[in-house]
Amino acid sequence: MNLEPIGIIHSPHQEQSGTPVQPLYAEGVEGEVVLDDRYADGLQDIEGFERIWLLFWMDRSRPYKLRLIPYRDTVERGLFATRAPSRPNPIGISCVRLLGREGNRLQVADLDILDGTPLLDIKPYAPKFDAHPDSRAGWLNDPAVDKRRADSRFTDPG
Amino acid sequence: MNLEPIGIIHSPHQEQSGTPVQPLYAEGVEGEVVLDDRYADGLQDIEGFERIWLLFWMDRSRPYKLRLIPYRDTVERGLFATRAPSRPNPIGISCVRLLGREGNRLQVADLDILDGTPLLDIKPYAPKFDAHPDSRAGWLNDPAVDKRRADSRFTDPG
Repeated sequence: MNLEPIGIIHSPHQEQSGTPVQPLYAEGVEGEVVLDDRYADGLQDIEGFERIWLLFWMDRSRPYKLRLIPYRDTVERGLFATRAPSRPNPIGISCVRLLGREGNRLQVADLDILDGTPLLDIKPYAPKFDAHPDSRAGWLNDPAVDKRRADSRFTDPG
Repeated sequence: MNLEPIGIIHSPHQEQSGTPVQPLYAEGVEGEVVLDDRYADGLQDIEGFERIWLLFWMDRSRPYKLRLIPYRDTVERGLFATRAPSRPNPIGISCVRLLGREGNRLQVADLDILDGTPLLDIKPYAPKFDAHPDSRAGWLNDPAVDKRRADSRFTDPG
């Protein structure tokens, strides 16, 4: 299982503190996804999609804990019941808006990703497969805290 | 960027041919996700979620091509505008239904994943973050073929 970055994500977010915790809270935040030239041909037809999934390696997340207090709660939860960035395999998935494409560069919006993050994959967002608007969402249905931006809890050593 | 499997996915699908191409076409197909014991504590609170994202390593996909004819079309598309399993980093994401949990074992339904597939991560499905029912979906909005099960095009050598 060997990963290789296929590109890089450029965003205005330089550190985790203050970065939106989800694309929903990053509305309008624009950036650019630059695919390595050799993969550019694989972007054909992507302009037809309003949103795309970015899969990325959260290279600045600190070692994970199996119980943690997520950003939008006040009590400990199991790691796999949260979207916290510190995980055994720190792979992030973000559904961002696709604004345009120039060759191997994608202009995107609603970016909740740190600048310089290695890109692992791009997949088209398909509502038919990915949208389940009424799916019950446990503690996230009624979060204790309306926190929309990160702090340093998942990046600081400690 | 070192991946380690955190568990394994058990399903009735033994080979790609005939396996549903998305959870949508796998309704009722049940299986089990077995997390390594050491991660079991991270599953706390997951029962509250009706659906979960499984991230997994598509270990039987063949080398990728940047242009391919996807299952639901008749013409070539760019790889990153498809959900084909053969990719530079063959990481799959599937939103499956969570039926129950016993310790480190999750009973799930709507499985479109091959038996024995290495598990990389589990994330809760949150409609607020993940559901965009009206998002424009390019060629997938009006696919040329209503193909719901895979054939061997992404597994056979050649």
